[in-house]
This record gives sequence, C-alpha cells and structure tokens, in this order.
Amino acid sequence: MEFTDKAIGIDFGGTSIKFGVVHGKQLVAEAPVIIPKDYPKPADLIQAIADTVNQLQEEHGDIKAVGCGVPGFVDLRTGRVHNLTNVPGWVNIPLRELLSEKTNLPCFVDNDANAMGMAEWKLGAGVGYEDLVCLTLGTGVGGAIFVNNQIVRGSHFGAGEIGQTSIHYKGRVGAYNNPGALEDYIGNNEFAIDAQRAYFEAGIEISIEECAPAALDAAATAGCSVALACWDDFARKLACALANCCWLLNPEAFVIGGGLSKAGKTLFDPLRKHLEAQLSAPFRDHLKIIPAKFSNEAGIIGCAVLALHQAEL
Amino acid sequence: MEFTDKAIGIDFGGTSIKFGVVHGKQLVAEAPVIIPKDYPKPADLIQAIADTVNQLQEEHGDIKAVGCGVPGFVDLRTGRVHNLTNVPGWVNIPLRELLSEKTNLPCFVDNDANAMGMAEWKLGAGVGYEDLVCLTLGTGVGGAIFVNNQIVRGSHFGAGEIGQTSIHYKGRVGAYNNPGALEDYIGNNEFAIDAQRAYFEAGIEISIEECAPAALDAAATAGCSVALACWDDFARKLACALANCCWLLNPEAFVIGGGLSKAGKTLFDPLRKHLEAQLSAPFRDHLKIIPAKFSNEAGIIGCAVLALHQAEL
Repeated sequence: MEFTDKAIGIDFGGTSIKFGVVHGKQLVAEAPVIIPKDYPKPADLIQAIADTVNQLQEEHGDIKAVGCGVPGFVDLRTGRVHNLTNVPGWVNIPLRELLSEKTNLPCFVDNDANAMGMAEWKLGAGVGYEDLVCLTLGTGVGGAIFVNNQIVRGSHFGAGEIGQTSIHYKGRVGAYNNPGALEDYIGNNEFAIDAQRAYFEAGIEISIEECAPAALDAAATAGCSVALACWDDFARKLACALANCCWLLNPEAFVIGGGLSKAGKTLFDPLRKHLEAQLSAPFRDHLKIIPAKFSNEAGIIGCAVLALHQAEL
Repeated sequence: MEFTDKAIGIDFGGTSIKFGVVHGKQLVAEAPVIIPKDYPKPADLIQAIADTVNQLQEEHGDIKAVGCGVPGFVDLRTGRVHNLTNVPGWVNIPLRELLSEKTNLPCFVDNDANAMGMAEWKLGAGVGYEDLVCLTLGTGVGGAIFVNNQIVRGSHFGAGEIGQTSIHYKGRVGAYNNPGALEDYIGNNEFAIDAQRAYFEAGIEISIEECAPAALDAAATAGCSVALACWDDFARKLACALANCCWLLNPEAFVIGGGLSKAGKTLFDPLRKHLEAQLSAPFRDHLKIIPAKFSNEAGIIGCAVLALHQAEL
C-alpha cells in the first residue's frame, strides 16, 4: 500500500457527510460538508456526493480511489448498503456502483468502524500489531478486528460488532432483541441516563446535560465520588466485553477512540484495572490499551486508507 | 497437507494418555493407554510417552510427525507447556524439545481444544468453512477459532478460550477471577448441580448422578418439564456466548462436540432457537450449527492432523 497515492475519503454520518483528500499519510484538503435536510432521496444525495468527489478530483487530480464509510451494514465486496441504522430510506442501495459510475473512479464502501480501525492500523496507534482490536466509544460502540495481520470480515462482512456483544445473558434487550448488548449500557445516552440516576440516588438532582461524558469527566477529575463511581461502573462493563475479545482472540492491543475516549485517564485507569483483574497471564501480561491517534478526522482518513488498501487487492 | 503421510497423535488428558497412528484420514492403530498414578514426575511420564511413540514408530514406520494435545496453556511455537489446569507439577515444561530428542521425530504440542478443532476443520464437520468456531462441551468448555481460512492463535497462543468468556459481568467468579465465565454455568458439574437444584425447587429430590447429562437428556426426551427447562436454560447461556462469537467474527458455522453434545436435539433445538432470536439477518441467515463428526477419537486424530499441518509450515 503506497501512501504516495492520493485517495478521497467520505465520512457518511447520520447527520453530515464529510469529504477529504488524503496524501502521504496526511489529510491535505477538505470539501464543504453536506448536511442533508429532511432525509433527501438516496439518489439525490448520491448525486450531491458524486458532485463533491468530482470537484475534489478536478482540484487535486491523480485520485487513485474513493472510500466511503457508512453507519450501518454494507457488503464490502459489492458495495451494496443493506441498511443504515439511523438514516431512513437507505435500504439495499448499490452505493459503490452508483458512485463509481458518476465519478469514473474505483469506489469502495465499508462500515464506518471498520474504516476507522483501518486508519489506526495502517497509520495510527495500531501500526505494527498483527492481532488488534480497535473500538470507538460514542452514541454506539463500533469495532474493527485484526487477526494474523489481516482485517476480520466474517462470512457476510458483519464482523467487529463489539457494541452488540452481550455482557449479561439476561440483561437489557438491544436493537436486535439481543440481551445485554454492550452499547445499551455504555453508549453516550445510556451512560448519561445511568449517571443521572446514580446522582439521584445520592440525593443530587442534576440535568441530563450535566451527565454528558465531558461533564462527568470534569466531575471525576475534581474528585466527585458519584462521578468516579459512574466511570468505574462504565469501565467494569467495557472490561467485560474486552475480556471476551481477549479470551477469544488473545490480541496484543486495544486501540480505543470515539468521543468517550477523550476522558483519558478517567476512563483508561479503571478500565485497565478491571480488565487486568479478570485475565490470566498470557492474555494480560503483554496487553496494551492505547488511545486512538485520530479524532474527528478518523472517518475521512480511514475511508481513504480503506480505498487504497482495497484498490491494491 | 497430505493425508498420505502417517502421524502419531497423543491425547494427553487429565486422567489418561491415549496414542494412535493416523493414516489416510483414518485412525489405523492405537497403543495401550497410559494411566498415570499418583502424579508421577513429568520427566518419568515424558519418558513413558516417548517409549510408546518409539514402539509405534517401530511397528508402523514412516511416521512424519507427532502431535500432542494437552489440557492447558502451551506455546505452540516452542512447545513449552506453561501449566496444565488439572495436572499438578506440569509448569514450564519443554515438552516438545524433550519428546523430539527422545523420538527423533518432529514433535508439536498444542492445546487439546485446538487439536480437536483442527480435526473437525481438516477432516470432520468443519471441512470447507473459512470462518468457523469449534467447541467442545464437557467438564470444561474448549474452543478453536478459524478466520480467513486460518486457525486463530492470538499473540501468545491463547485464542479460542470460549469457556472463559463472560455471559454476565457480575456473575459467578471463574478460575481466573473472571466474572460470569461460561464454563462455570454449563460445565458438566455445574450443569448437574444447577439441575439438582431445579428439581429440588420443583419438589423432587434426586441424586447428583441422576443429573448427569445423559440422564437429563433421557428425562427431557421422555417429556420431563424440569429437565426440559434445564436444557433450555443451558441453551440460553451457551447461545449468549455463541452470539458474542457471531457479533465479533460473523462465522459461517459452529461445530459442537464433547460429551454434552451427545444430547443431540435436546440441546441443539433450544440452542438454535435462542441463538437465532438474538442475531440480525447477516449473522443469522446462513449460520449453521453442526454436531462434531469425531467423538472419543477426536483428540488423537486432532493431534495427528495438527502435527501434519505444522510439519508443513
């Protein structure tokens, strides 16, 4: 994979679509963000995306490939989007085919968490690891898994859904009727709701906004015992899911990104404690827990890296 | 991997050591079982193992390699046994080196569940699957994982420990201080104890022997509602751990062996029901749950297959 090549990355999120040109391991240019209003028809939105790609192609030339990461389930081989979790109307859309036709470029479409994992593995905190698990902590919990120095796709391109794994076989029922799904405990919103209740039980009434991750991080850093207990509980639940990855895959490292990872020590210290306490030596002794290198630009860079990687296969 | 070659498989269990010669995909000969008494010194036991291997080698000639599966943690690369869960004194033993010296044959040492998984993947119910999870249900729960048509070893040869994965982040505490370890719910002994309690709560006092898997299978087949509920509970817990494998790895199939799998429909029907109920379409629709092909001979065959596989690398 040559980072002397240029690629365009498209970070297709639930509320905005971001574009950038990646060259020599760097994000060298961005295009105006598209903010879709009132859920336009997929065909219209795809035309707008293609127009932006063509504009970037004119300005920068020599684009080798285009990668697009979407928040949902997609068949990487065909580039067909099966469904997007929070974007109505995107069911069974041949996105890769349409984008390729409209841009005359090799286009690839993947799950957004896989794209972000690819960025960390090829250019970020995960470089050099042959057995690696990357995850993003935000509204949902996404993952990308690397084994034997290859990304794990699974039989139908579904692999890496750490957020759907169970931490309690009789727990909260998730989006797919799955009991105890991790993201139903430690997603942004669920974390805030649980924290608000913890404060209430401690005799303190605060708003849900005051229970946002940044606020809870600040409170914990200031020594608030309720906030510290909330992060400890968060870490305990996340550690259970990560321990399951360890027993199954014995990875060298976890790379953790996404909004919630910005809590830094507030999250990483109790996470390390809980994880190490429940693993035996071969799983624990060399295990690294590393913050992601990339932040908001992870999606664009990941998609560009994915496109260069796939274009080579 | 040529099955025209002959290999010796050694199934090193907690209570007996079994030997066989595998040729042309078949177990063609067995040697007398060694039943170690009063935990002999590892050096003495290794000499006895080597003597049996040398005898088989004299009788059958042209042995290409020797594989030994042990119930514990081993570094496949060096063949050094770190520790065996139920065999005292086996700590940090260079088993591969000693066996190779004493037999003048290429020897390989692996975890027993990996060896059994290798038998199913190369010769048994798992042939042809690129993304596969094999498990054995017995006193413990062992596993072997295949991704991208390769066995998953992990960074320190620990991968595949399905029995240690958690189904409850605040559950029963396992052998490694790990909460909710699957085998602490569905291991032979735990299953019997839970069943005895279920009968007691239903007003029926029965012995722990009457709660052995075969007895509970017979009772369920005869329509006993308590036994049916016990198997349903067993299946629900196992399904949680298998669903976690699905979300992470999106396998094509599970191959399930070991003593408890002999319950057949009694286990497989509720297992399929619980697993399918908690997966989304790409994880569920093409997923197969298959009984293992091999039974008591799985260990010997698996070790021989492993040896031929490793000798080729």
